[in-house]
Amino acid sequence: MTGWRYADPMNPVTDFASFHAIIPAGGAGTRLWPFSREAKPKFLLDLTGSGRSLIQQTWDRLEPLIGAGNIHVVTGPAHAEAISAQLPGLVHLIVEPSPRDSMPAIGLAAALIEREFPGAVIGSFAADHVISDTAQFAIDVAQAVQVARTGKVCTIGIRPTEASTAFGYIEAGNPLSVDGAPAAVEVARFVEKPDQQTASRYLASKTFAWNAGMFISSAEVLLGHLAELRPALYDGLTAIAHVWDTDDRERVLDDRWPTLERVAIDHAIAEPVADSGGVAMVPGLFDWSDLGDFAALSDLSKTPDDVVFLDADGLVIAPKGKAVSVIGISGVVVIDTGDALLVTTTEHSQRVKELPAAWKERGREDLI
Amino acid sequence: MTGWRYADPMNPVTDFASFHAIIPAGGAGTRLWPFSREAKPKFLLDLTGSGRSLIQQTWDRLEPLIGAGNIHVVTGPAHAEAISAQLPGLVHLIVEPSPRDSMPAIGLAAALIEREFPGAVIGSFAADHVISDTAQFAIDVAQAVQVARTGKVCTIGIRPTEASTAFGYIEAGNPLSVDGAPAAVEVARFVEKPDQQTASRYLASKTFAWNAGMFISSAEVLLGHLAELRPALYDGLTAIAHVWDTDDRERVLDDRWPTLERVAIDHAIAEPVADSGGVAMVPGLFDWSDLGDFAALSDLSKTPDDVVFLDADGLVIAPKGKAVSVIGISGVVVIDTGDALLVTTTEHSQRVKELPAAWKERGREDLI
Repeated sequence: MTGWRYADPMNPVTDFASFHAIIPAGGAGTRLWPFSREAKPKFLLDLTGSGRSLIQQTWDRLEPLIGAGNIHVVTGPAHAEAISAQLPGLVHLIVEPSPRDSMPAIGLAAALIEREFPGAVIGSFAADHVISDTAQFAIDVAQAVQVARTGKVCTIGIRPTEASTAFGYIEAGNPLSVDGAPAAVEVARFVEKPDQQTASRYLASKTFAWNAGMFISSAEVLLGHLAELRPALYDGLTAIAHVWDTDDRERVLDDRWPTLERVAIDHAIAEPVADSGGVAMVPGLFDWSDLGDFAALSDLSKTPDDVVFLDADGLVIAPKGKAVSVIGISGVVVIDTGDALLVTTTEHSQRVKELPAAWKERGREDLI
Repeated sequence: MTGWRYADPMNPVTDFASFHAIIPAGGAGTRLWPFSREAKPKFLLDLTGSGRSLIQQTWDRLEPLIGAGNIHVVTGPAHAEAISAQLPGLVHLIVEPSPRDSMPAIGLAAALIEREFPGAVIGSFAADHVISDTAQFAIDVAQAVQVARTGKVCTIGIRPTEASTAFGYIEAGNPLSVDGAPAAVEVARFVEKPDQQTASRYLASKTFAWNAGMFISSAEVLLGHLAELRPALYDGLTAIAHVWDTDDRERVLDDRWPTLERVAIDHAIAEPVADSGGVAMVPGLFDWSDLGDFAALSDLSKTPDDVVFLDADGLVIAPKGKAVSVIGISGVVVIDTGDALLVTTTEHSQRVKELPAAWKERGREDLI
């Protein structure tokens, strides 16, 4: 690949017929503590001040394209109620008994969708990412759907804006010729989170994208790969899907779910299938952030009226009306939730994930 | 002077007969905002966590030595009520209509004391300094009182612990031979707040002390100097003192007070009198802090249980139970008063005084 090719925005293909979106909604988001808590994880929070939580924003991107009936959210028992409350239009809420990483969650949704909507194309989208250019998002997803219809697994690669070591990378291969997906390329390989030097090389090469966990394929193709690559997991998920709409659901879930392999879809399917040439990529030309830590949030935030900075800049989140003054700290991160206060800098924001454990050790379960 | 000479702690002279203490209680303490406010200045706050405010601690140091009847507090109308509430034993509360710096405040008290207690020795002590070694304080003040009885103005110089540019300095001269004041020396001169290089030189010389505004002299001597050096101010203060206990007090105060020169006792008396050899110094061998900013407070504070520091240290003041976490900031200053939050470092703590004006400009009078 010799740089990013652009889809024709004057003539976009947006054929979402029989396309279903899967939104795995898990993950504690401890790097955003004390803003995110176990009971109120990142995807339930309005982190951008838009008035909508991240999962609501995810819904808002997808629902106009494919309709409420084609959206499937997978979550744990602790958050099912809050999700239903935030997404009153949600029809398909799949509650997994316990978190077993992304492959069982997406695989179960795929099996259920394939049973109810045979021939469906499915795509997975994180519940807690931020994308504001929804028009471009639609164009790029539509291209990925076209690619998926050719039997490939298609990912949407995020254009790197910096030499980040926080993401896995996708190396682009040769262009493909897929009708309605002019931007699609082969995927040469997936690579794990690199060290700083490697990340800089990837960024300079212009042939690597960030892996944001967006995988689009026909349900049948995905389940076929799973059957071949992870037969035990495939069997377990199929057995559960088989009795999903019967009185046996709970018994079979209790029986099989705890035995399923904990594995990410990247490892279970994307990497091995890419090695055999079965994965394509559409470059995502929309803006994107995973809001992985306060440094990422800082990039998106505006300084509220209740903040005075003297020789300072950064991120301040505090109760409305609270007067926050910061002097002499560049890239400051101040998160005041009333019961807890975090003060750090964007440079140290990755270490925030150590805090819930530190407070638990002090007996402050109320803060977790 | 060749270093500090020590009083004999086994045989201290502590003759406080006819000694009266004047405590000027003014000053907003804006460098401790938002902990200190206009309505609740520094001296009314329990800044050391001792359970007593700074003015209460000042009272606690003096009252056992000289009795409640010999303590005179000078303050403005805004704080008279709060001071009376904090010091229920206070007999002499002098309310000045408006702040006109330390000379009018101390001079008025001196004139009133001289009228009621002829022959009194008076000493001025700031309302908001911290001294924990009260036994040594008593010994040093007693020496200064002995020196004052010889007709000199005597100051108590604070031993510098660093090359601070925040204080004026006092240069020690030759030793004096005063009965009961073995540590007393002449004062060669008073100098203004120095630059960093000069301060370092002063510290290294071991002949300079910090000026903490403690001046002890007979009331008659002080008023005599004032009559000679600032005759208009002397006249005004004498006129006010003359009618203090009559129905004319308010009328004369209203008439004369606004016309009095705004001047510090250092400039009005200490400096010129030192130049003519009339000022002595007793070195203060007690610990001392003026808590001038959060850096000074940081030196005294202990880290509360509700704070987690990761690669961080500094000062945290927050409501009880609030969980404060700081990552990666050395010398951090975090002051959470509920309605306001200040985040800075000890290095920048002098700039805190700019904040009240900044918030006033934003219409947040409630924070001043």
